[in-house]
Amino acid sequence: MASLRFCAPVIRSVARVSHRRFASATAPLTSPRHLLSIADLTPAELTTLVLNAASHKKTIKSGTTPKNIAGALTGKLVGMTFNKRSTRTRISTEGAVVAMGGHPMFLGKDDIQLGVNESLYDTSVVMSSMMSCIVARVGPHSDVADLAKHSSVPVINALSDWYHPLQTIADFLTLHEAFPSDRTFPVGLDLAGRKIAWVGDANNVLFDLALGAVKLGVDVAVATPKGYGIPKSMRDLIAAASEPTPTPGKITEHDDPLEAVYNANILATDTWISMGQESEKQKRLRDFAGFQITEEMGKRGGAKPDWKFMHCLPRHQEEVADEVFYGSRSLVFQEAENRLWAAIGTFWWIRTQNLYANNDLAAIEAFVVNKGEIR
Amino acid sequence: MASLRFCAPVIRSVARVSHRRFASATAPLTSPRHLLSIADLTPAELTTLVLNAASHKKTIKSGTTPKNIAGALTGKLVGMTFNKRSTRTRISTEGAVVAMGGHPMFLGKDDIQLGVNESLYDTSVVMSSMMSCIVARVGPHSDVADLAKHSSVPVINALSDWYHPLQTIADFLTLHEAFPSDRTFPVGLDLAGRKIAWVGDANNVLFDLALGAVKLGVDVAVATPKGYGIPKSMRDLIAAASEPTPTPGKITEHDDPLEAVYNANILATDTWISMGQESEKQKRLRDFAGFQITEEMGKRGGAKPDWKFMHCLPRHQEEVADEVFYGSRSLVFQEAENRLWAAIGTFWWIRTQNLYANNDLAAIEAFVVNKGEIR
Amino acid sequence: MASLRFCAPVIRSVARVSHRRFASATAPLTSPRHLLSIADLTPAELTTLVLNAASHKKTIKSGTTPKNIAGALTGKLVGMTFNKRSTRTRISTEGAVVAMGGHPMFLGKDDIQLGVNESLYDTSVVMSSMMSCIVARVGPHSDVADLAKHSSVPVINALSDWYHPLQTIADFLTLHEAFPSDRTFPVGLDLAGRKIAWVGDANNVLFDLALGAVKLGVDVAVATPKGYGIPKSMRDLIAAASEPTPTPGKITEHDDPLEAVYNANILATDTWISMGQESEKQKRLRDFAGFQITEEMGKRGGAKPDWKFMHCLPRHQEEVADEVFYGSRSLVFQEAENRLWAAIGTFWWIRTQNLYANNDLAAIEAFVVNKGEIR
Repeated sequence: MASLRFCAPVIRSVARVSHRRFASATAPLTSPRHLLSIADLTPAELTTLVLNAASHKKTIKSGTTPKNIAGALTGKLVGMTFNKRSTRTRISTEGAVVAMGGHPMFLGKDDIQLGVNESLYDTSVVMSSMMSCIVARVGPHSDVADLAKHSSVPVINALSDWYHPLQTIADFLTLHEAFPSDRTFPVGLDLAGRKIAWVGDANNVLFDLALGAVKLGVDVAVATPKGYGIPKSMRDLIAAASEPTPTPGKITEHDDPLEAVYNANILATDTWISMGQESEKQKRLRDFAGFQITEEMGKRGGAKPDWKFMHCLPRHQEEVADEVFYGSRSLVFQEAENRLWAAIGTFWWIRTQNLYANNDLAAIEAFVVNKGEIR
Repeated sequence: MASLRFCAPVIRSVARVSHRRFASATAPLTSPRHLLSIADLTPAELTTLVLNAASHKKTIKSGTTPKNIAGALTGKLVGMTFNKRSTRTRISTEGAVVAMGGHPMFLGKDDIQLGVNESLYDTSVVMSSMMSCIVARVGPHSDVADLAKHSSVPVINALSDWYHPLQTIADFLTLHEAFPSDRTFPVGLDLAGRKIAWVGDANNVLFDLALGAVKLGVDVAVATPKGYGIPKSMRDLIAAASEPTPTPGKITEHDDPLEAVYNANILATDTWISMGQESEKQKRLRDFAGFQITEEMGKRGGAKPDWKFMHCLPRHQEEVADEVFYGSRSLVFQEAENRLWAAIGTFWWIRTQNLYANNDLAAIEAFVVNKGEIR
Repeated sequence: MASLRFCAPVIRSVARVSHRRFASATAPLTSPRHLLSIADLTPAELTTLVLNAASHKKTIKSGTTPKNIAGALTGKLVGMTFNKRSTRTRISTEGAVVAMGGHPMFLGKDDIQLGVNESLYDTSVVMSSMMSCIVARVGPHSDVADLAKHSSVPVINALSDWYHPLQTIADFLTLHEAFPSDRTFPVGLDLAGRKIAWVGDANNVLFDLALGAVKLGVDVAVATPKGYGIPKSMRDLIAAASEPTPTPGKITEHDDPLEAVYNANILATDTWISMGQESEKQKRLRDFAGFQITEEMGKRGGAKPDWKFMHCLPRHQEEVADEVFYGSRSLVFQEAENRLWAAIGTFWWIRTQNLYANNDLAAIEAFVVNKGEIR
C-alpha cells in the first residue's frame, strides 16, 4: 500500500493546474522546474544530479530498490513526444519511468506534432493538464522551450538541435565511474583538471557536454574540420556559463585532431552526419577525412597512455576504428547503459525539485526522508 | 496488497468468454454494457455519470485518491484501436486507464485496422478474449457498433462519424462546473432551462451534445450555413431521445448565428473542416463566412451578458476570435482537462455497470462499498 | 508490498550485465535461456511449459491469481521489437506482460529496425543493458538468433521466417484441452498417437508445430501442392529433433489432401499467402485450388468422425469453408485466446529457468515456492 502514497503528488500537479485562471492566457502560477539544457543547472546541481544517478545505480544494482525510487512515479502518466526516431533515448527514458512505477505514453510524429494543426500554447496547456511530466524530442530548440514556457508540469528535453542534457548526465556519470574521486569529504565529482578531446562534428551532444565541462572544471579540446566548428552564439553561451565558476574548464578549438588529443584523458566523438544532414553525406565524409579516432591518433597526438573512448551511439565505421570501439579503452556500452541511470536520476531530481519548490513538506518527508528499503 | 484484489474481475471477464460456445457464431452469453453514444444512456444514467466524474475530480484533486478508483483497472489491458490520430482523446483515455492502475495498449491504423485483412467478427472475438475493455476510434459508426456487437468485453466509442460521447460527458461536466446546482437534495445536474448556441458545422460532437441536452432539458440552438444542418436521420434520433423525457430540451435550427445566440448561456463551436474533408476546405471557408464567434456576435445576437465559450479543440482561427478563445468567457482549457475526468468517470461507470450486470456481489462490495481512502 | 519483492531480479539481470567486460566483444558471462524455436526445448520442457500454461489458465480463470504470476514482471521493461504488424502476437505478449505486472515497450519498424543504422551486436548489447527481456518479430531467423547471441537478457522469438514457437505452445495447449489426458500419474500431455493433417502451405507455423509434434509423439501429415513442401534443410532439422525421442511422431508429406486427412484428429491450415508473398497471390490461389478445408474433405478423406479444426488466424475464405470455420469442429477462437495463456506460460518459464540458471535461491524461494494465493 505504501507505494500508493506517491499518488498524492500526481494529483497535486493536476490540482495546481486547476488553480490557474485558464480563461486568461497567463503563465502557470507556480512555474515548474524543467531540464532543457545543462545550462539550466548550477555546478552544484549538476554534481548532485550525477552523484544521485551514481548512487541510485549502485543501490539498485546491489539488489535493493529504495521505496522512493520504485514508487516515485506511481500512477503518473509521462508523455513522450518524439518527432524523430530514437533507440537509446526512448528506451532509457521509458525504462526509467517504468522502473519508478510510472507509465510512459509514447507519442510519435504521426500521433502528435508540436505546433502542427494547433498552436504550441494550446498543446502545452492541454497536454500538461492531463500529464505529470513531458519528455520531448524536437527539431528546433525553440519548440521545447516554448512547450516548457506554457506547461504546468516539468518538461525534459530529450534532444533538440542545440542540446542533449540526458546524454551529458550519462557522460559525466561514466566519467565519474572511470575517474572516481578518492575524497570522502566533501563529496564531489572531482573531475576538475581532466581533459576531453572531442574529434569530429560540433553538434548538440558536444554543446551540452562543453557546458557541463566548464561548470565542472573539465577541459574540452574540440577538433573539427574547417567550417564545422562551434557556432559563435554557442561559444558565447559557453563563455557565459563559465563566468560564475571560480575555475571553469577551458574550451579550445583546433583544426588538427593531433593537437586536440594532446594530454587528453578521453577521446570522444559522435556521428558526422546527424539526422536531416543525409544529403550532405558525401561532402561531409570528404571533409572529415583524417578525423577517425584510432590507436595511432592517440599515440601520435600524445594522449594520456590510458586514454578512454566515448561515443553516444549509434556508431559508424568512419568515426572510430574497431580496435578502439571494441577495445579495452572503450566506455561506449557502459555509457549507453548509463543513459538509463541518468534518466532515473533526472526524473528523481525533477520530482524532488518540484516538491521543494511547492514546499510540500508531507510529500518530502514521505519521499525523501522516510525512504524505507525494500527488496 | 489491497490493490491486487481487483485482479479477480479481469479474470472473470476472460472466464466469461470461455463459457461461450466459440465454435458457434453466437453472441456472448452475457452481453456487456458498452458506451457507443449518449443515446445509450437514460437521463438518470447520464446525470450519474457526470456527477461521478465531478466527484472523482474533486476528491482526487484534493489529494486523496479512493482505493476503488486507483485500483479499478489493476492488471487490466485496455485496447485502444485508433484509426485516426488524436491528441486529447488518446491522452485522456490512456491517462484515465493509468490513473486507475490499468495498462492501455495503443493500436494505431498501422497496427490494426478493423475489418481489414480479417472480418470484424473475428477481430472482435479475438481481441475481446485477450483484453478487459476496448476503446475504439473509427470512421463509420457501424464499425464500432459491430465491434461491440461481437465483443465479450465493454466497448467505448472514442469518436465515430456520428458520435463522440466522451466529449459530451466532458462538456456536461464543464457546464455543471460553470452552472453549479444550489440544490442539496435530490442531487442532480440542474441544467434544465440553460441554452447552448452551436454556431458552425453540424457534426458528431454536436449530435451527442444534442442527445444529452434533450435528455437533461437543455436547449440547443444550432446555426449552420444552408446545407450544413443536422441530417434528417439524426434529427429523428434526437426527437426519439426526447420522447421519454418529461421536459426535454428543445433543439432548433437556424441559418443566422445571431438568431441562435439569443439568450444563450453558452456559445459553442468546433472545427469547420473535420478529418477527411480537407479537399472541401476552400468551399467550406467560403460557406461558413460570418460564422466566426466574436464578442460582437454575442452582443448583437443578444446572448446572456455573461455567456461562456466552449470548443472541443483543436481550434482554428476562423472559428472563434482570440478575444473570445483566450478571454475570460472561455472554458476551453477546463473543458479539455475535463476529458481526463470524463474518461475516469466513464471507465468507473462501465466497470460498476458490468459488476452489477454480472451480480458480482463480492466484487461490488470490495469495489464500491468498502472504498477505503488512501493518500 | 509483497509484489515489490520481485523487483530484485530485474536489478539482478542488469547487475549481471555490469559484470561483463563491455569493452571486449565477448559473449555475456552467464548466457540467459532464450526461446527461439520449439527445437530449443526437450520433450519434457515442452510438456512442462504447456501444462504450466494450462494450469495458469485454469487457476486465473477461477478468479484467483497466484502472487508469483501477478508479480512475476513487476517493474520490468519488456522490449517488443516488431518489424511487421501483428494483432494476436502483439496483444497476447503485451497482455501477458501486463497480467504479470510488467511494462511492455512496443518498438515498431519505424522506431527501431534491427541491423539498420547500427550493427546487431551493438543494438543487442545496448537494448539488453536497459531491458529485462526482448520479444522480437523479425524477417530472417538469423536476426533473432544474432540478437539472442549477444543479448544479456532472455530473447523470445515472436515470429521469424522459420519459426513461431508461441503459436505452437498455444496449439498444444489447445490440443491438450481438446484431448485431455485421463492419467493422473505421472502427469503428461498424452497426445502421443494423435494425428494432425496440415493442408496448405508449408510455412513457419507448420515447422515449429512439426518439431513439437515429433517430440510429443504426434503424427503430422502435410498436404501441399507440388513445389510447396517442406524445404530439405527443415526436413533434416525435424528428423534430427526426432532422434533423441524414443517414440517420435511421424511426419509424412502428400500432394493429395484426401491422403493426408485419413484418420486425422485435427485438420489444420494457415494463410496461403504470407506477408511478403502478395505479388504471388494469383499464382498461389491457382496452385492451392482444391486445398480448401471442408466437411466434404474430411468425409471423403476418412478423417476421424469428430475431427477438429485449427487455424492460427487471420483466416481467409479460400483456406477453409465457413461451415467448418464457424462450425462446431472449430477450435480457432479458443486457439487464439490460448495465445495469451501460452505467452503467460512462456514468460513464467523463461523467468524461472533463468532464476534456476543463476542459482538464485532466495528469488526461487520467494517466486516459486512461497507463491501465496491472492484474490
